[in-house]
Amino acid sequence: GSELLEQERAKSKIPVEQLSKFLFTQAGLDRKRRILQVLQSEKVFDKSQNYFAGRVDRFETALARAKKLRQLQVKLKWTEEDKQCANELVSEPGPYGLHESMFLITLRNQGTPEQHERFLKKAQNYEYIGCYAQTELGHGSNVRGLETTATWNPEDQTFVIHSPHLTASKWWIGSLGRTANHAVVMAQLIIKGKSYGPHPFVVQIRDMKTHEPLENVHIGDIGPKFGYNTMDNGFLLFNKFKVPHISMLARFSSVDTKTSQYLQPASPSLIYGTLTWVRSTIVLQAGGVLARGVTIATRYCAVRRQFQDRDAQNQVGENQVINYTTVQIRLLTLLAATFALHFTGRGMMELYEANQKKMSQSTGKTGSANRGVGPEETHSGSDLLADLHAVSCGLKSLASSTAVEGLEVCRRACGGHGYSNFSGIGPWYADYLPTATWEGDNYMLTQQVARYLLKSARSVLKGNEPTNDTTAILSNFLSKADIGAAFDVLGKDEDIVAAFAWRSAFLTFEALKHRDEQKKAWNDLLVDFYRLSRAHSQYMVVKNFWETLNSTSFGSDLDADTRTLMLKLFRLYALHTLETEGSEFYSSSAVTVRQIMLARTSAVMKLLEEIRPHAVRLVDAWDFPDWQLDSSLGRYDGKVYEDMFYRASELNPLNAITVDPYPDSETLFKKDESRQFKSKL
Amino acid sequence: GSELLEQERAKSKIPVEQLSKFLFTQAGLDRKRRILQVLQSEKVFDKSQNYFAGRVDRFETALARAKKLRQLQVKLKWTEEDKQCANELVSEPGPYGLHESMFLITLRNQGTPEQHERFLKKAQNYEYIGCYAQTELGHGSNVRGLETTATWNPEDQTFVIHSPHLTASKWWIGSLGRTANHAVVMAQLIIKGKSYGPHPFVVQIRDMKTHEPLENVHIGDIGPKFGYNTMDNGFLLFNKFKVPHISMLARFSSVDTKTSQYLQPASPSLIYGTLTWVRSTIVLQAGGVLARGVTIATRYCAVRRQFQDRDAQNQVGENQVINYTTVQIRLLTLLAATFALHFTGRGMMELYEANQKKMSQSTGKTGSANRGVGPEETHSGSDLLADLHAVSCGLKSLASSTAVEGLEVCRRACGGHGYSNFSGIGPWYADYLPTATWEGDNYMLTQQVARYLLKSARSVLKGNEPTNDTTAILSNFLSKADIGAAFDVLGKDEDIVAAFAWRSAFLTFEALKHRDEQKKAWNDLLVDFYRLSRAHSQYMVVKNFWETLNSTSFGSDLDADTRTLMLKLFRLYALHTLETEGSEFYSSSAVTVRQIMLARTSAVMKLLEEIRPHAVRLVDAWDFPDWQLDSSLGRYDGKVYEDMFYRASELNPLNAITVDPYPDSETLFKKDESRQFKSKL
Ligand SMILES: Cc1cc2nc3c(=O)[nH]c(=O)nc-3n(C[C@H](O)[C@H](O)[C@H](O)COP(=O)(O)OP(=O)(O)OC[C@H]3O[C@@H](n4cnc5c(N)ncnc54)[C@H](O)[C@@H]3O)c2cc1C
Ligand SMILES: Cc1cc2nc3c(=O)[nH]c(=O)nc-3n(C[C@H](O)[C@H](O)[C@H](O)COP(=O)(O)OP(=O)(O)OC[C@H]3O[C@@H](n4cnc5c(N)ncnc54)[C@H](O)[C@@H]3O)c2cc1C
Repeated sequence: GSELLEQERAKSKIPVEQLSKFLFTQAGLDRKRRILQVLQSEKVFDKSQNYFAGRVDRFETALARAKKLRQLQVKLKWTEEDKQCANELVSEPGPYGLHESMFLITLRNQGTPEQHERFLKKAQNYEYIGCYAQTELGHGSNVRGLETTATWNPEDQTFVIHSPHLTASKWWIGSLGRTANHAVVMAQLIIKGKSYGPHPFVVQIRDMKTHEPLENVHIGDIGPKFGYNTMDNGFLLFNKFKVPHISMLARFSSVDTKTSQYLQPASPSLIYGTLTWVRSTIVLQAGGVLARGVTIATRYCAVRRQFQDRDAQNQVGENQVINYTTVQIRLLTLLAATFALHFTGRGMMELYEANQKKMSQSTGKTGSANRGVGPEETHSGSDLLADLHAVSCGLKSLASSTAVEGLEVCRRACGGHGYSNFSGIGPWYADYLPTATWEGDNYMLTQQVARYLLKSARSVLKGNEPTNDTTAILSNFLSKADIGAAFDVLGKDEDIVAAFAWRSAFLTFEALKHRDEQKKAWNDLLVDFYRLSRAHSQYMVVKNFWETLNSTSFGSDLDADTRTLMLKLFRLYALHTLETEGSEFYSSSAVTVRQIMLARTSAVMKLLEEIRPHAVRLVDAWDFPDWQLDSSLGRYDGKVYEDMFYRASELNPLNAITVDPYPDSETLFKKDESRQFKSKL
Repeated sequence: GSELLEQERAKSKIPVEQLSKFLFTQAGLDRKRRILQVLQSEKVFDKSQNYFAGRVDRFETALARAKKLRQLQVKLKWTEEDKQCANELVSEPGPYGLHESMFLITLRNQGTPEQHERFLKKAQNYEYIGCYAQTELGHGSNVRGLETTATWNPEDQTFVIHSPHLTASKWWIGSLGRTANHAVVMAQLIIKGKSYGPHPFVVQIRDMKTHEPLENVHIGDIGPKFGYNTMDNGFLLFNKFKVPHISMLARFSSVDTKTSQYLQPASPSLIYGTLTWVRSTIVLQAGGVLARGVTIATRYCAVRRQFQDRDAQNQVGENQVINYTTVQIRLLTLLAATFALHFTGRGMMELYEANQKKMSQSTGKTGSANRGVGPEETHSGSDLLADLHAVSCGLKSLASSTAVEGLEVCRRACGGHGYSNFSGIGPWYADYLPTATWEGDNYMLTQQVARYLLKSARSVLKGNEPTNDTTAILSNFLSKADIGAAFDVLGKDEDIVAAFAWRSAFLTFEALKHRDEQKKAWNDLLVDFYRLSRAHSQYMVVKNFWETLNSTSFGSDLDADTRTLMLKLFRLYALHTLETEGSEFYSSSAVTVRQIMLARTSAVMKLLEEIRPHAVRLVDAWDFPDWQLDSSLGRYDGKVYEDMFYRASELNPLNAITVDPYPDSETLFKKDESRQFKSKL
């Protein structure tokens, strides 16, 4: 395989490092090299048994790694970015995962200075090791429906945390099953018999010395999952468990100790912001997540040869499977999507940061309310904040679905060998999969996008001036709907963006008609809303990609050849999406049937051919070290078969077992030396 | 959850048993009950640790189960169907899997009577335990490219089996890794320096007593996979290994011991038939495979409640998530697909059996040639046999893709809990996944369908009379292409079938134009071919479903209400497919844009509403015992949360471990009692 990848790299002149720098900055690349070196020199990070070990062993190793990462952070004074980089290189969810994310974030954002003193310091020191316990066996999406109660008891100034039914058991809580000694518990606050909705409480759940659960606290790991098995997702039940007044995180709301009154000292707009931020991160990461699969599959499909191309005259040997157009239509379109998502995520993060200050001033709503779905609010008015929030919902859904489905396409493009864990795609896919479900189920989030678009459309119909991009495209559509559009999507690239905007606006007004004129029930429109959100999010991706191509840094940081190639990737992403979603484009009259046919049979096929020679260099630019990919098929040097063989024959515990194969013999294993493979920690 | 499922079952009057009988026959249902009872009374089949155990333990248990199944077969005189039924109930690939399928089939079909005496008898007795070793590290799809050689040596009348390179290593071979002592090895037959292509050889690979590999044979298990981990897929290398003349399976070709001449005593049409049969089986099974996921998800979504429906006035408590139309559009369309695939598979099997006799008389081509892809053969002429073969390729691809993708849709429809292995969907999906790759990769197979359709179209263009359904729909299209079609797909059900036929014919002639007139390269048309194959296969499914609805048994075995409901499922499958593939339908002028819009916004939504009340009874009719499903979410009694909790807290080895969570401590597990959970065999 080595020669083939060398040939591939010789075929294209795209400067890989320049492009990597454009994607990640020089500082980012340097950081990766530095951290990688540290990790590779520590025995505990040796990955060679990862694909073989069972759940208990994997969890044990993951715990050892989590500890070591923390030790290294202290010793080498790693920044948050350094630590994050190390996590990405190790590439497995670890037992401190939720402590380091949601537990600390919630303490920080929702705690008072006094609570920071009391809880946050110890948490930052890893004396308190925590988790974020919101979801229950019976309720996930519907946070308002949580059943765990926290009842205020004025007599002794405590809250009694209680799980009234089995379905009130906290469930899925990362880092809780075996690791955490504290939890942020979301519970219905009850004062004098009245419920005030879910609120966060910091609760000690295990003994600080013995690490056994405290009395009246029942905890455990919830068992094996499709992936994420290095993480101890757990369950948690309380039997009238008392916690002091300070346990309730009081930055945004609290209970007055003297009057027992419910107080709301500050607006919870920050939580609103946090949700938007988390979703924007998911969008940004989705590009890299997918790129990992695309890198592996592209390299392997350049190494894999199968069949002679009988039409080709002078071909020596078998054809590289990446030359087959049915392989290209899968991989190269996904390669284009990786850049599309990356640039979109970056655009979102920039918008988020620019808006962050505004955000913390304006009034918002509580976090849990924003997770709710249901009929839209009827008050109108649009602003950048709401736009960003809605767009982040739609894009989170689109981006994570694209990455999830794309990874499986990559795996399958590798034929039989894709099914081996040594491909490195399957296990990665399995760990990433829950992203489609958490932080808002990908179907449900689309209702929030639709609600926002409907609201915006109502405002535009009332004649209000556009205040952001969404209202701008809606009012543009409205002003031209009668004349109709004639976008030259195959000739002019701006017109592609305009056609996507047109379709999104068309679907918005269609949905509005159904809802406001025909008075259809919300539930009867969910499928339309899903499509609408998808359409609008695709417009956002195309627009962000286009804007990146027109940014100053794009012009200054990349040479002309690379810029041309990136433009082709833009076209490929956009036109392939356009033809796949053909019906919506022609039924909105954004394009003609003939244009769609041409996009399909001519433009897309031509772009595949033009991008093909650069495929390997383009994935190289994503700059995944072999150590991170941990893939036989995706090796930089193309030594695919050698590595498959080495792993199977040298690292595989099953080969240390000799069986008795005959049905009449009760002996199963005649010889079992598999234990020697268990990693020594 | 129990009350909710009871209510669901009370809401519909569909007679579940009657429908089950229609699907499986009374004899099939009786068999299942009988075998289930046997299995449940044997301790080795206890499934409670299946989701927890690591690879080595799972393999050990699988071996024990395989042995027990064989013992039971002998003791209870099980027929092949009984054994097959037991396998389906146990639901895991086992170490005898390839012995019992491909090894025995190949010996039977390709061995001479003498070879049957010598090999088959012992194989049937499980003295010889075998596997089917075709695929190599470097070659899978392209069988002609295999590198293993079998060189005829006239001196001592032996073949020398040799693996000249690492890539010649047999790879992926089921039952080989640890279990088999024999293999059917596909190797390039070489006589006097000339190669005659791949041929099958029966080769002993392990010692009959010690079970160690023989000298100059290198074997091992290939390591962990995305699924299928109860099976020991293996690798195999030969170093100039001698086997006697009788090793070459000689029914279709042999080497003359005296003259060293290559002989072809019989036509290999049976192999041709076997491939068609295997693919038809995959189509038939795909319905049941998918139904398993649909059963679990439908029951769970009827038990799961989340959010109040705020539009609804009198709703008590939260809404069952199956009431959300975005859940229905996913699950009920897949429910319709399960029946569509089942009836199509049944239709295929019937056709296959009817044609079987014809087949064994007519001349065919060799098995490996049929696996090949590349430019089409140019000789024309069509007949039922070729039709069946092509259709089985296209349907294998469509059916297994539908089942694979559908299972993941089911899993995700279950929200967070779908990700737990206790959902029973993930592990089932993972084991089924390779079906999209083996027996012809789902993308590659479509070339065979296209090749056949092009051939048929050429024959029709020449004015030949239609000889089968394919040529009939092509010539019908040709005679009306100028007038155009006006199918009333929303009003007349026959017209739905006709519209699907029209689209397939349209795409066929389009492809023919590209190939024969515009002389496009084969490779440039692969994407079109893929679409064409998909379109034609969807037509076949719609047609088979429709024919079932019009069969005598359908009229006599089902009551009127059930028949009406099945008709609605037919419409749902067909119209949902039609609107999803909208562009192809309108660009072929089979339907108008307006019809597609109506199908989408009105017809499909209405069908969802009408089928919804019967959803639980419809999945009940698939008649999966809880023991087979092994799913907390899919339990017949709806005790979802109780079962999740029980498995997590009582069966989970990780909960017998207490960790030391602090980063500075080197201790990982303070207490480890997890070994007690290891199943005792
Ligand atoms: C690996 C993993 C780790 C997790 N970690 C944590 C953690 O650390 N802490 C924590 O608190 N939680 C955690 N979770 C829980 C996670 O946040 C929830 O599972 C997720 O929010 C989905 O909620 P659900 O399971 O209730 O889905 P459900 O709401 O039950 O969804 C089921 C189905 O119903 C549909 N549906 C539901 N409501 C509607 C509606 N109104 N309209 C239309 N359709 C609807 C959904 O689309 C879905 O198809 C984790 C989950 C996983 C899988
Ligand atoms: C779980 C499992 C069990 C198996 N068990 C057995 C067994 O018991 N015995 C045995 O002999 N084999 C076995 N196999 C092997 C299996 O039959 C092959 O993996 C399968 O046929 C695919 O071949 P491949 O891996 O060579 O795919 P490849 O041909 O390498 O496919 C790679 C990619 O190239 C594309 N491609 C290749 N050729 C073309 C072309 N001409 N035109 C367009 N696209 C092309 C494919 O679509 C795919 O995307 C098993 C495989 C698995 C996963």
